Amino acid sequence: LVSGHEFDWIASLARRVARDSRVSVGIGDDAAVLFGGPRDWLVTVDMLLEDVHFTRDMPMTLVGRKALAVNLSDISAMAGDPVAAVVALALPRDANDRLADDLMAGLGDLADEFHVAIVGGDTNVADKLTVSVTLLGHPTGRGPVGRGGARPGDVLCVTGQLGYSLLGRHLTFPPRVHEAQRLHQLVDLHAMIDLSDGIGSDLFHLADRSGCGFLVDAAAIPIHSPTRKDDRSPLDHAVNDGEDFELLFCVSAEDADRLTAEQPLGTAITAIGRAVAEPGVFWTKEGTREAMPRGGFVHRWA
Amino acid sequence: LVSGHEFDWIASLARRVARDSRVSVGIGDDAAVLFGGPRDWLVTVDMLLEDVHFTRDMPMTLVGRKALAVNLSDISAMAGDPVAAVVALALPRDANDRLADDLMAGLGDLADEFHVAIVGGDTNVADKLTVSVTLLGHPTGRGPVGRGGARPGDVLCVTGQLGYSLLGRHLTFPPRVHEAQRLHQLVDLHAMIDLSDGIGSDLFHLADRSGCGFLVDAAAIPIHSPTRKDDRSPLDHAVNDGEDFELLFCVSAEDADRLTAEQPLGTAITAIGRAVAEPGVFWTKEGTREAMPRGGFVHRWA
Repeated sequence: LVSGHEFDWIASLARRVARDSRVSVGIGDDAAVLFGGPRDWLVTVDMLLEDVHFTRDMPMTLVGRKALAVNLSDISAMAGDPVAAVVALALPRDANDRLADDLMAGLGDLADEFHVAIVGGDTNVADKLTVSVTLLGHPTGRGPVGRGGARPGDVLCVTGQLGYSLLGRHLTFPPRVHEAQRLHQLVDLHAMIDLSDGIGSDLFHLADRSGCGFLVDAAAIPIHSPTRKDDRSPLDHAVNDGEDFELLFCVSAEDADRLTAEQPLGTAITAIGRAVAEPGVFWTKEGTREAMPRGGFVHRWA
Repeated sequence: LVSGHEFDWIASLARRVARDSRVSVGIGDDAAVLFGGPRDWLVTVDMLLEDVHFTRDMPMTLVGRKALAVNLSDISAMAGDPVAAVVALALPRDANDRLADDLMAGLGDLADEFHVAIVGGDTNVADKLTVSVTLLGHPTGRGPVGRGGARPGDVLCVTGQLGYSLLGRHLTFPPRVHEAQRLHQLVDLHAMIDLSDGIGSDLFHLADRSGCGFLVDAAAIPIHSPTRKDDRSPLDHAVNDGEDFELLFCVSAEDADRLTAEQPLGTAITAIGRAVAEPGVFWTKEGTREAMPRGGFVHRWA
């Protein structure tokens, strides 16, 4: 443990970071330096805010873990390979002296697991805790998988189970980095997104960017077994809770058949619908076709 | 102007961003994609917080400008060439509908001026405004200029004038990107840092990383003409206010003589001291040699 002094703390972080063959200059200068090369770079950023994405009573190791995990999920959604991250922090003025260390320990453990180098950051003090991680990586295989390549006739698939993330999985979910790379090796991924806001929001992004529609079979959506009942249906939770961080992707019907039959990931792949030429997102519920309400979590202001 | 809806607003930003030959995928996917190449990459991040780095009554165009400018200053401190940025935002819940647009307009104008592509970001809503910008760039010339290369006998130089940044310049300072690249072409820059926290802090970073000491002539420090007097001396302001974002750098005595005689930058270069073998940072004030107090702005918690 170090006292709550910006520069002492940064120096202690720098000592803990292992040397990395991809990093020329790490923590401790005005900017980090990453070795170049012929490969393109992926760049993504996610900011976690106290009382929005987590609360202070949650274990800070898990909050730090989540701050990197949500970015790993974005890199996975491009079928990318994570390389290096920078971490911008606002530490709460009234933090106890373990908060910052626990936060970076949780973040650092997940970084080690996914071979991510922490190469720099920015440390501030404010009212509430804010953690903003920027993650860099490389595309793999035939290149990055975007949101815009779905075609009518494609089958829409999802990994894992959805819903009820607030019961705890939003802090502990496994980023699907390896699963996405494996899919990218096995089949031609036409389009992919990670489920950060819920199908009720993220599927609309696939539709908008691909210029096609989707028809979902509501009964096919894999729902995380609810351990607590409330007045919302399990389907509503599965579609609108968000923070599942599973992969939602489009492949040919042949590839979907193969993936759902062979189940090569160690986590379930489920076909839940298909891309259609008609614009809009629809689903069949108990035999009736309806427009899927645009839901999920949306930040609003003003 | 668009309503305060996350996805509508992001779409409106994406429409305003020009295509860029360095960017393969910009705003609107899970991650941005930058074209690779043989050159190394610089990465830096800075987070600006309401009531710490700015207040809500300041013009939001200038707050947005500052959020990118402080990062440009970090890239300049490595003599780098900025390329692309991602912007993570927490917008205040009670923002009026111009705040977000003004913020991004100010940021975008400075991005255009320095040929920086805005390639992605993250939009959230919280109690207070937070802007975290991550900036990527390339080293120039003989490579990145670090903090660790000062050698005894080097002359310590600074650009511009220091102090009283809070009177307004902390929102309007010109990032020294072109000046740093020009210096890097003209002379062998042994070590460089940008003055974000003040000489009273940043010079200690040069000393720590270079493993040498410094002796500063207090009378030589160029002080920004104070327009308002207070109970602190102009020298105290110049050394400890921070947020001047001028360049502090070390060169050979010959190169310092040349730079101060030729003044090639359009902004003043002043020699203010020299690197010495003895550890520690000292200054001479009215003929007396003293240890310089370690000052500047430090974030503290716990």
